[in-house]
Amino acid sequence: MTQNEKIPLGSYLWHRISQLGISSIFGVPGDFNLTLLDHIYSTPNLSWIGNTNELNAAYAADGYARVKQGAGCVVTTHGVGELSALNAIAGSMTEQVKVVHVVGQTSTRMQEGRMMIHHSVGFGPDHSVFQKASQAFRVAAADLKSEEGAPEEIDRVLRECFVKSGPVYIFVPIDLVDRPVPAKRLETPLDLEPEFDQGNVDEAAKAVLDVVYASKSPGLFVDCLVQRRNAVAEARELVDKLGVLVYTSNMGKGIIDETNPHYLGLYNGVASAPGVESAFETHDVVVTLGNLPSDTNSGGFTRKVAPEKGIYINTDDVQLFGKKSFEKAPIKYVLQSILKQLDTSKLPKPTKPTLPTPDLEDDADSKAITQSWIWTYLAENFFQPHDVLFGETGTAAFGIPDVTFPKKIDWITQTYFGSIGYCTPAAFGAETALVELDETKKRERGRTVLVTGDGSIMLTIQEVGNMIKHRLTPIILLINNAGYTIERVIHGAHQSYNDIVPFDYSHMLPFFNMPPEEAKKNFHRCETKVQLEEVLRKESVRSPKAVQVVEIVMDKLDVPWRLSTQVGTRGEQAIKEMKEAGFKVREMKKSEAYWQ
Amino acid sequence: MTQNEKIPLGSYLWHRISQLGISSIFGVPGDFNLTLLDHIYSTPNLSWIGNTNELNAAYAADGYARVKQGAGCVVTTHGVGELSALNAIAGSMTEQVKVVHVVGQTSTRMQEGRMMIHHSVGFGPDHSVFQKASQAFRVAAADLKSEEGAPEEIDRVLRECFVKSGPVYIFVPIDLVDRPVPAKRLETPLDLEPEFDQGNVDEAAKAVLDVVYASKSPGLFVDCLVQRRNAVAEARELVDKLGVLVYTSNMGKGIIDETNPHYLGLYNGVASAPGVESAFETHDVVVTLGNLPSDTNSGGFTRKVAPEKGIYINTDDVQLFGKKSFEKAPIKYVLQSILKQLDTSKLPKPTKPTLPTPDLEDDADSKAITQSWIWTYLAENFFQPHDVLFGETGTAAFGIPDVTFPKKIDWITQTYFGSIGYCTPAAFGAETALVELDETKKRERGRTVLVTGDGSIMLTIQEVGNMIKHRLTPIILLINNAGYTIERVIHGAHQSYNDIVPFDYSHMLPFFNMPPEEAKKNFHRCETKVQLEEVLRKESVRSPKAVQVVEIVMDKLDVPWRLSTQVGTRGEQAIKEMKEAGFKVREMKKSEAYWQ
Repeated sequence: MTQNEKIPLGSYLWHRISQLGISSIFGVPGDFNLTLLDHIYSTPNLSWIGNTNELNAAYAADGYARVKQGAGCVVTTHGVGELSALNAIAGSMTEQVKVVHVVGQTSTRMQEGRMMIHHSVGFGPDHSVFQKASQAFRVAAADLKSEEGAPEEIDRVLRECFVKSGPVYIFVPIDLVDRPVPAKRLETPLDLEPEFDQGNVDEAAKAVLDVVYASKSPGLFVDCLVQRRNAVAEARELVDKLGVLVYTSNMGKGIIDETNPHYLGLYNGVASAPGVESAFETHDVVVTLGNLPSDTNSGGFTRKVAPEKGIYINTDDVQLFGKKSFEKAPIKYVLQSILKQLDTSKLPKPTKPTLPTPDLEDDADSKAITQSWIWTYLAENFFQPHDVLFGETGTAAFGIPDVTFPKKIDWITQTYFGSIGYCTPAAFGAETALVELDETKKRERGRTVLVTGDGSIMLTIQEVGNMIKHRLTPIILLINNAGYTIERVIHGAHQSYNDIVPFDYSHMLPFFNMPPEEAKKNFHRCETKVQLEEVLRKESVRSPKAVQVVEIVMDKLDVPWRLSTQVGTRGEQAIKEMKEAGFKVREMKKSEAYWQ
Repeated sequence: MTQNEKIPLGSYLWHRISQLGISSIFGVPGDFNLTLLDHIYSTPNLSWIGNTNELNAAYAADGYARVKQGAGCVVTTHGVGELSALNAIAGSMTEQVKVVHVVGQTSTRMQEGRMMIHHSVGFGPDHSVFQKASQAFRVAAADLKSEEGAPEEIDRVLRECFVKSGPVYIFVPIDLVDRPVPAKRLETPLDLEPEFDQGNVDEAAKAVLDVVYASKSPGLFVDCLVQRRNAVAEARELVDKLGVLVYTSNMGKGIIDETNPHYLGLYNGVASAPGVESAFETHDVVVTLGNLPSDTNSGGFTRKVAPEKGIYINTDDVQLFGKKSFEKAPIKYVLQSILKQLDTSKLPKPTKPTLPTPDLEDDADSKAITQSWIWTYLAENFFQPHDVLFGETGTAAFGIPDVTFPKKIDWITQTYFGSIGYCTPAAFGAETALVELDETKKRERGRTVLVTGDGSIMLTIQEVGNMIKHRLTPIILLINNAGYTIERVIHGAHQSYNDIVPFDYSHMLPFFNMPPEEAKKNFHRCETKVQLEEVLRKESVRSPKAVQVVEIVMDKLDVPWRLSTQVGTRGEQAIKEMKEAGFKVREMKKSEAYWQ
């Protein structure tokens, strides 16, 4: 590349996106992004994937980003496409997932002239109303108005995407797509590392270690933001080397190896499995990594650590006992420094308490498939190392956390944002990522196992067609419990608003264009435990060569104990309502009602 | 009702909604709106309908509102639901459709405490970020923070919904739903009439009439905002009584009776049928009603009237020759005043020019179904008076306007906002409205005829399941032309981004739970004109007792002449690209290129 070589701005953008390690572009075409999309085809290692609508496209980019442990990219068109994707982008913001949202806009002349171009709003329309709508849901935006300085702006926001770990927007007016910009900058890779102060990092690491060395019984709590800041490997190594008792959260599962002898389970405040809460309370020090204390990830705010016990290694700082703090200390570097400074001879030896064996549920003998049975069954008989496992908001997201995972599971759920419908397109994105990572030998080719429900899959179901189009091979475990069971347990158990539009899933695969004969083999409907066990033993299901759909029929008032217990943390009124509606509710320690 | 009687705020809200003439509530349940939904069930003449996702729900409310010539209502839950609906709400804003969006929010205590409740964004979250996102897409909002003054706020925004004709938001924190408020106000119906000045109205009417009386050859142009301001009856009467030559726009079709002898056709600037443009230019005065001059509704801004010829009766004012204006003169009242003051003896007699017979297209002999054939065929053989006819953005929205409608058609298209996927859920809303209007004998039970394409229906297809669930009987004419043909004609005719995920529509009805035997009878696939003619002659299709799906296979590069001509108004480059890609493009008068 010569000093003065120029390339079209659109091409510059895609080269930078490609340099981030992104190889698949999600989105929907529209007349303000078509010429921009053209430049994808001439960019090395980049492919247009496309989606069935924009919400699904942005969810797919999020799922892709999580599996790649990097960023995803979605392209939409001015206004209509941009807004349709917004809820998914807000989810990426909430859950700190790196997504680059490229919007093909009306031309600068149309914008300046406030022309009544289609997709605008009103007379003399302000074309920027759409981008204003996403302001709270992005960590940065490049609002390009000229090719001058555009490469710098693109570079700035792509860095922010990684440093702040969240969505960024790049707005590209259609007239700028083919304007020439200097290619020179592309020779310098983007600096994607967060700002840090090595002195602070090392001091923080030392301070943490000193406390742990002096502690009689330290505990380690691992939460999801570890994954968002690309510190999973460091956290796993730390767990192994520290050898202290370790816990995880609903959202943080999968980060640590749960077959580790020091793993004690999921700690979720009063909504924890028997014995876990009292074990957690014995620690004189608790080190929390990557904390995300939303109601749904903290047993309704009952996961608490007394200030004098608490050390927090947050995404960008370290806090000791609410008193001392170290800034500019990103979690990945702090964990690396701890590992470097660690003297294992100084560590206290933990005593692992024996947790009580959970009582047999009173529906244990049921032939029907029950919530008390299915999750442990799946964990022990179906989940495998290297799987990417999706638990959709609903009974799956609250049932699955109860089980012990095999090693090296990517657990994907949207417990804080909680937007139903997320998991199906996100699983499409995840499978796309798995294929890529397998081709480049960067990750074992695990399976995508999507556990969702009839209420959730309805919102975004067309993306199953895209799985078939791209010959992907996810396994869809589809719980058919006749409606929004998660809403029934919250309120209105028998109200018609919690019923849904019923689908006959036996027609789903052929509708989405799988040849009927093949579709027949890949669809499985199970009403009993025996039927489900049989299906899940099939090699064609376990190692799929095409999309597998397993419809699992369950009772509409059957919920995992963790879900009803979580709802119970809202207060006495919630417990009373559940009991009246016929749900089983476990006894738990009283907590302050927060749901009012 | 006694002076001091109190009712829950939630109940107050639904009583007011019911008083607006709304009987069906669209939406999706979520844990912040469940208790609010409870109150629907105890409100007279109100039913919960529910939808397959929030975008579809808001589209359905828009379609319902258009057919009811009133308002529609959609309910979503805080954040996730609210944002998913946003693109549809922006469409209602753009197209001036009355939609009440009720959002069930987190409690006031959670909001004040910036609690990390699920669906929020970030740490110490501001719960109002979601409602800020919709600011540009609503004409008013009630942001309730207490039951004090809440009824007044609700009343205020419901009035604004009608007066300004657009979406309004009502945000209801969950803790306020059951708070008691005085019921007294409910006894006074809301005043939904716009502010007006009768003096101005009458003066404006007189001024318009004086110009028309003095004119040699006046023309009348009727556009879509007439419908939004509930002035269709007045406009129809005016057309009959004035007896001047009359034209309509893409979006304004269906308002006037096209079998009227003075109807000359659709005037769309340089993209008009032969002879229409030159006829339009002979007028010395043009009276435009309810103008909406977006690019797509004005032949790329080539529908122009010289200032010295132009009279505009706008939604709320009247403008004469860009010089004199009358404010506070709502269109409905101005038309009423014109009708009252009209002295038909003073009117000039129009001479109707003979339009040239359009040349036969060179594909006229084709056995395959072609764009040049299908629209006239449908108009002459299938469309019926009282039909609600949907033309989805795509070839349908540009093909259908070319034909002459039977009397009393409701023509629904989203030509300004142009969000593909709109028409399918909107047709669900329209059918719901038609059933209601039929039950109360307020409208003849016409059919809902949805003309859409494979690219568009994909985005929102699950709502077809809701049509089946509610035993509605729309006719879906589904053009299968292997992708986004409307994008192909704009750019990238053969690029893979314009391909879509293929569906096998023969499985659609059974997938959405129509019993297979019945589904077989109600699905029809047509590859030739003869096949389509045969299907459209069937009584079971013409007067359906269940959802009918007619898959119409067409060539992926076949477009209506009006679409390629519309694209041609963008400039020489657009014409060149179309020709190179193999599209037929009609010659037209040169216009200023605006697409840059």
